[in-house]
Amino acid sequence: MTLIRQFEINDWPGVWPMLEPVFRAGETYAVPTDITEDDAYRFWVQAPQATFVALDDDGHYLGTYFMKTNHPGPGSHVCNCGYIVAESARGQGLAGELCRHSLDVARERGYRAMQYNLVVASNTAAIRVWNKHGFHIAGTLPGAFQHPREGDVDAHVMFRTLVP
Amino acid sequence: MTLIRQFEINDWPGVWPMLEPVFRAGETYAVPTDITEDDAYRFWVQAPQATFVALDDDGHYLGTYFMKTNHPGPGSHVCNCGYIVAESARGQGLAGELCRHSLDVARERGYRAMQYNLVVASNTAAIRVWNKHGFHIAGTLPGAFQHPREGDVDAHVMFRTLVP
Repeated sequence: MTLIRQFEINDWPGVWPMLEPVFRAGETYAVPTDITEDDAYRFWVQAPQATFVALDDDGHYLGTYFMKTNHPGPGSHVCNCGYIVAESARGQGLAGELCRHSLDVARERGYRAMQYNLVVASNTAAIRVWNKHGFHIAGTLPGAFQHPREGDVDAHVMFRTLVP
Repeated sequence: MTLIRQFEINDWPGVWPMLEPVFRAGETYAVPTDITEDDAYRFWVQAPQATFVALDDDGHYLGTYFMKTNHPGPGSHVCNCGYIVAESARGQGLAGELCRHSLDVARERGYRAMQYNLVVASNTAAIRVWNKHGFHIAGTLPGAFQHPREGDVDAHVMFRTLVP
């Protein structure tokens, strides 16, 4: 069984080892590959409105996601999330579980839509999961992501409404 | 003749009166309509990489724009700009002048693309100007902007590359 709950300060030593390899790889997140741990904490925990962690029965960290308001003022009914699954927990559907959880949380918090701003087009596994959970590709930004091996690759803006 | 030059600290008393009515109206910018002058300064001057002002021969403020990196790390070759034309200077092509200026500055600074994240679909005059200057609608975000009279209206993501 997977428990998904709100991040607590003591979780950071379990969360950072999930984030660091993803940020260092520079293949999926628009985050500097040399980001410091402090800046990563600000980005993942302090700047967002909320952060969540997923744990297995033994308390091992399986994944994490953040939720933030995508734009203030007249854009503040749209939220944005970012998800990371621990390397050891991939291929078991956890990204989908985190996504479903975040959709419920977003509705509870009164958001009316969710937007992913920069989904790297080569990240087809992620796109398949987001599609399955109701997101569509609202647009494609040509060459908007500098992939470490593939050069400037396209990125998608993905979107779904949360109201009927 | 219009002079466009980099913002200097003494310009703020001339810039804020151009921004305030636009932010208060809440029809085009995803900025809280009750934003304070201090927060507006942070948003328009401190957070961006650069801010510019346009002046007429008599030193009157005609418009202003900011330029910032849209996403860090692997997204940092794409910049974002926001433009505001003083009410008294509208309808004279200044938005286009500011846009052209910003495209030159962006190229000088090594950006390879420019992106507008949230162009309110009902703002057809702006869309026409951005189209004329090489931007295309990369995607449309359904209901992503809370218009004060029209409710949730669509917003476009607009994009143009800066390299051949």
